[in-house]
Amino acid sequence: MAGVTAAGPAPATVAIVAVGSELLALGRTDTNSPHIAAAMQRHGLAVRFTTVVGDDLGDLTDAMRHALARADLVVCTGGLGPTDDDRTRDVAAAVLGVAMYEDAGVLAGIRDRFGRRGLTMPEINRRQAMVPAGATVVANERGTAPGLWIPADGRAMLLLPGPPREMVPMFEHALAAHVVPRWGGGLIRQRALVVAGRSESWVDERAQPVYGPWRDDALAVSTTILASLGTVELHLSCHGTDDGVLTRRLDAAVAALDAVLGDDVVNHDGRSLERTVGDLLASRGWRVALAESCTGGLATTRLTDVPGASAWVDRAVVSYSNAAKIDALGVPDALIASHGAVSEPVAAAMAEGVRTRAGVDVALAITGIAGPGGGTAEKPVGLVCFAVTGPRGTECRTSRFTGDRAVIRSLAATTALDLLRRYVRASGLP
Amino acid sequence: MAGVTAAGPAPATVAIVAVGSELLALGRTDTNSPHIAAAMQRHGLAVRFTTVVGDDLGDLTDAMRHALARADLVVCTGGLGPTDDDRTRDVAAAVLGVAMYEDAGVLAGIRDRFGRRGLTMPEINRRQAMVPAGATVVANERGTAPGLWIPADGRAMLLLPGPPREMVPMFEHALAAHVVPRWGGGLIRQRALVVAGRSESWVDERAQPVYGPWRDDALAVSTTILASLGTVELHLSCHGTDDGVLTRRLDAAVAALDAVLGDDVVNHDGRSLERTVGDLLASRGWRVALAESCTGGLATTRLTDVPGASAWVDRAVVSYSNAAKIDALGVPDALIASHGAVSEPVAAAMAEGVRTRAGVDVALAITGIAGPGGGTAEKPVGLVCFAVTGPRGTECRTSRFTGDRAVIRSLAATTALDLLRRYVRASGLP
Repeated sequence: MAGVTAAGPAPATVAIVAVGSELLALGRTDTNSPHIAAAMQRHGLAVRFTTVVGDDLGDLTDAMRHALARADLVVCTGGLGPTDDDRTRDVAAAVLGVAMYEDAGVLAGIRDRFGRRGLTMPEINRRQAMVPAGATVVANERGTAPGLWIPADGRAMLLLPGPPREMVPMFEHALAAHVVPRWGGGLIRQRALVVAGRSESWVDERAQPVYGPWRDDALAVSTTILASLGTVELHLSCHGTDDGVLTRRLDAAVAALDAVLGDDVVNHDGRSLERTVGDLLASRGWRVALAESCTGGLATTRLTDVPGASAWVDRAVVSYSNAAKIDALGVPDALIASHGAVSEPVAAAMAEGVRTRAGVDVALAITGIAGPGGGTAEKPVGLVCFAVTGPRGTECRTSRFTGDRAVIRSLAATTALDLLRRYVRASGLP
Repeated sequence: MAGVTAAGPAPATVAIVAVGSELLALGRTDTNSPHIAAAMQRHGLAVRFTTVVGDDLGDLTDAMRHALARADLVVCTGGLGPTDDDRTRDVAAAVLGVAMYEDAGVLAGIRDRFGRRGLTMPEINRRQAMVPAGATVVANERGTAPGLWIPADGRAMLLLPGPPREMVPMFEHALAAHVVPRWGGGLIRQRALVVAGRSESWVDERAQPVYGPWRDDALAVSTTILASLGTVELHLSCHGTDDGVLTRRLDAAVAALDAVLGDDVVNHDGRSLERTVGDLLASRGWRVALAESCTGGLATTRLTDVPGASAWVDRAVVSYSNAAKIDALGVPDALIASHGAVSEPVAAAMAEGVRTRAGVDVALAITGIAGPGGGTAEKPVGLVCFAVTGPRGTECRTSRFTGDRAVIRSLAATTALDLLRRYVRASGLP
């Protein structure tokens, strides 16, 4: 999407700099920047970019200079510790051209923190009491490194420590105390349509003619398509000042997309497929049982990721061996012999077997070949058979997925949960 | 750690640009850049920074310009899709000042990919066949967007698609085919000790006195500790020119750490816990069955993530309801009544029940309270009971985990698999 198209004045801009060489080695991921970026967007600020840089003085200086040149507000996380490779404070002051002084109150607070644990403050922690002129300290309840809010020349820098459990509450405080009062840009309202069982280009071909013109509307609705394994998300966002106006605009947008996407729409609020299935089962007062083979329990794991799942999930049998299909699910030996374990008749027998044993309303079964081994000419890797059984009888389906073992298992679990969703949804009631 | 200490001439420099507004607006994490950065460091290249930028033309152009000004090699991920907000190709060509043409071979490949699935290529996908002059195409086995290697003026840009399952194999290929031959700096050898059932600080307290001095050795071994849910990884890396020397140094380092960490070491090669358990079961010729309650199939899902798992996994019963524990596992009703479903006697009965029914060598059971609901004063959220049963009898354990539902489920599954690992490992044989 083209970011958030702002109505009215151009929104204030933000750049986010995460500091730490460990983020550039060994595959450590920076989870702070996405958290900060999403919050800024919610408050109508436009995030230009986020960057991750190591402790090198030149790199850090360049990163902060570039960020200040591109944004009104620069948020830095990390590099506020007591050791000499913690340079964020010094570089920020240098780039902004402000002097540093040792803040007696901050120093006392750090000493006190050590004291409460019966320790004396190591001398190196004294560096954490250095504060740039004109800065406001952001208290850190969970660590020694204080945060800093540094306004300068109509811009500002916000320095926060790297550990998320320290950073998050400090950021929320600084956002409310400093950022929103100064730069909060009206309201952003968002929706997310989740679509299952269709490809990204299938969805885009149908949805683009609908949402394409919205970008040029007086009240613009910006759209992003996100494809993940087996589902496609259409994110809508609208920026303005009147909650009622934004809500009505997004309601109309969602209705227009529903009209072209129909039953493939899982929900309009970004809930996960498994949560949507759980909500549907709960609304019917139905309980479900599963029989999984190639997915090895993945579909049940997802269904039970949802809090309260014990209200609608009774049990599952992961029948990895044929013996398990026969004696734990009552699949006739002869059926496996004549059709093979990966077949719609066996999927149906698995579903009906677990439904009878569990005495539940509806049951779902998955049997297939996840690979890399086990494929044949007529039963290739990626072939998966599904069955759903319940009050409306048994429905079967066969899919052929491409990808590695993890992809095939994930697509199979998603497809199975979507078949369950469609079955339950079609069984009357709103 | 402070990156990898490179020997010899200044290493080639790399900047990484991840493109996609969803990475800025929706709290999505960029996992590609850390993967690429770590690989570059392993090959002795110096990563200056990584940045995440949206689809905005100005931001994207600025990010690529800045990256090219700071690094010999710029790697971009994302924005190679078929829709008109996928601009990475065009902006890269513009910034490098090279023309684009439609590559007939690439176009045929994309058409063919759709054709193999019985689909006709949507016209919008045609954009994915545009190639900058002088570029080499990096084939994409798992998607329609081809990658591009674009050398220009002694520098180069590598464009790769955003979905990790497409990006990773393409990156590995381009790394070996284009990057290392041109810019690879010496040899890096690495090891990873995986430790289970211990905290990061427990591991560090014992390991630090051992590895601390290594940094000052003539042949330095740098160490990083990475904690994830339930396991701790000790990454060792050694940089030089002679493979034999590096290997001997790391062998000695691993042996020294083994001496202080003992049985808690899962393996020395970074294999996952579940793969290690699978390898142990296979080496014994044992088959396993599982009975899971609060983990909802997660332990079985992980165990069957490993290719070939059907050789050692027979079945699992996810007994989410008490009824399932009683009639699918034969847990005595009275046992649940007297001890409660979350208790070591019930865990033991679940394990013994599924072992008997499956007729396998060893069985693992998990029962607990994942929350957020269902906790009581004497059975709080996070309380989980485990049992392993096999030729050496039944062993039980109770743990109390803190965290949200997902954290508790993940820690419980990891702890269960580690208990199985210790049981099988202790059952004779190397």
